[in-house]
Parts: sequence; C-alpha cells; structure tokens
Amino acid sequence: MNFCSQCGHPVAHQIPPGDDRQRYMCNHCGAIHYQNPRIIAGTLPVWQQQILLCRRAIAPRQGYWTLPAGFMENGETTRQAAARETWEEALARVEVGELYTITSIPHINQVQMLYLAELPHPEYAAGPESTEVRLFSEEEIPWDELAFLTISNALKLYFEDRRNGVFPTRHIDLNH
Amino acid sequence: MNFCSQCGHPVAHQIPPGDDRQRYMCNHCGAIHYQNPRIIAGTLPVWQQQILLCRRAIAPRQGYWTLPAGFMENGETTRQAAARETWEEALARVEVGELYTITSIPHINQVQMLYLAELPHPEYAAGPESTEVRLFSEEEIPWDELAFLTISNALKLYFEDRRNGVFPTRHIDLNH
Repeated sequence: MNFCSQCGHPVAHQIPPGDDRQRYMCNHCGAIHYQNPRIIAGTLPVWQQQILLCRRAIAPRQGYWTLPAGFMENGETTRQAAARETWEEALARVEVGELYTITSIPHINQVQMLYLAELPHPEYAAGPESTEVRLFSEEEIPWDELAFLTISNALKLYFEDRRNGVFPTRHIDLNH
Repeated sequence: MNFCSQCGHPVAHQIPPGDDRQRYMCNHCGAIHYQNPRIIAGTLPVWQQQILLCRRAIAPRQGYWTLPAGFMENGETTRQAAARETWEEALARVEVGELYTITSIPHINQVQMLYLAELPHPEYAAGPESTEVRLFSEEEIPWDELAFLTISNALKLYFEDRRNGVFPTRHIDLNH
C-alpha cells in the first residue's frame, strides 16, 4: 500500500494514536487502512464413499489436486461461499453439511474452512480454475500430488473419522 | 475506495476480465482491489459458573454489555485473536477452549467466532474500550442491555448447553 484509497495522498506506516500496531495511515485525510485475515471456504464433496478433487489449472500449486475452495466474498455466508466455490471449480452442486476443519494460517493471514458436503449425483466438470475434476476412492487419493497441507490434513482426518462414523469439527493452527 | 492504493490513480468499479462481480480496478497499473469479509474473534469467559461481560465504552452500542471480541489481526490465529481481545477489553487472561459459535453476518461482511474460555482467577478490569467489566450469574445476565444478537444467541445457547453438559460448535447464519 503506497497511496490512500480514500484521498489519493501517500500513506505512512505508523502506529495510530491509541493503537498498538503499525497501520497504513493517511496524514492528509486521516483515514486508517486496516488489513485483516481473509477466509478461504470450500467443501469435501462425497458421492458414494468417493471424494471429488480438482486438479489446479492456476498457480499456486498448478497441476496438483485440491478440494474445491477459494476466497469468501462480501455479502455471503461461509456455507454459501463453500457451495459457490464448489460450483466454480468443479461445476458440482453440493449439499453443504457441517463445518469440518477450520485452520488458521497466520503467516499468510488466512483462515480456511472446509465443510462436509454431499454430492447428490456424480455430475461435475472442470471449471475455469481446474484442468480435471474426478472422484477418488480412499485407495486412489493422490497423496503425493495434493496441493496444500490443509487438503491432506482434511482428507486424512476424514478417512479416520469415517471408520468411526463421527465427524467432529477440527480446529487446526498451522504455524510456519 | 476512490484511488488505487498501489499507484494513486483513480479506480473504476467494474467487472475484471474472467471475473463475475464488480471490483475496484486500476486502469493505470492494472491492480484489482478485492474486498473480503472480516473475522471478529472473542470469548465467553467463565469463572465458577459466572460469565464475564464488558460494558462498551465506544460505538456501536455504547453502554450495552458484550462478550469481549474484536477484529482478528493479520499474523495471528483465531484463538490468539480471541485471547488478545479478551485481554484488551477485559484485562483478563483466559484459557481459550473450543470454538462455540460461528456466525456469518453477510449484510455487514463479517464472520464472528466465539470460543468457550476459562477464567482461572477472578481478575479483570475495564480496558480502554470498556467502562465496566463484571461477572454475571445466569440470573443476573442483563438480557435487555446486551449489545448484539450474536452475544445474546451465544449466552442463550450456553445456558441451555450447560444443563446438558455438552457444548457443540454452533453454526449460525444471520440474515437481515
């Protein structure tokens, strides 16, 4: 951030009065520009014991497999964000269930939330950010080609929990 | 948003190529300025069956009672944010437990997360954003003077759940 988005003057990086951390501040109009973590929402879509994964068409981790997920937008709920991302990346309409994993990743200022989801019919296709979308049984999961640690964590937990038939919400903090 | 925070030129509100919603875009340097929901993190601090509430010194809802909570900052986990806000508003050091309520509030672009917390000692005081901090038994809760619906929801659920001794994570969507 170099300029004030409100008035266009250069900003300074300094601690505002009464605050205790540096913010981008405009000494011309007085605006303080807070920056906060962003939410990634997605699903773990299941059809007849199989999991829907997407092969990424874009960076980061292009070519690797992921669960459908992406940045939550203004004006939606976390569940709506998870369903929208599943549609955009896998052209799949899911029934979003319970929150399954919530992962804080402080070094990249993200909180990722993955929901369990039912894929009522095996209908899906690659959206613009995927090159390939397919169902995997547990034995077929491409563990060495998963895009992110949050994805492999969620899948490992899911297969463990499936043996017990209970899927509690898992709270994970990923530190560097 | 009127100006590009990267190069200082005026921004336009338009749909970027390949996108499907309006963003603030700079036609000079090409920057796209995404805006996303923010996370509010806080705690429901308990000491010997009593709940710690803060009377708000600031708008919105000045003078009303709330659980300690505030905007999650970059570089922290949701639990760290909840503990820090509890310190800042109630000068109380808590042991943060399980996620209790997660509430999407799409019309104000927020996701609020409240954690169950143990107050090991009855030590607390008003921080700069509170005029008063005190412990309330269930019978003493000032239901008509609570600041936000998310707070009254969490407290109602808590007292119900306490009768059963189980505190599952509650997922709430607040629509206008």
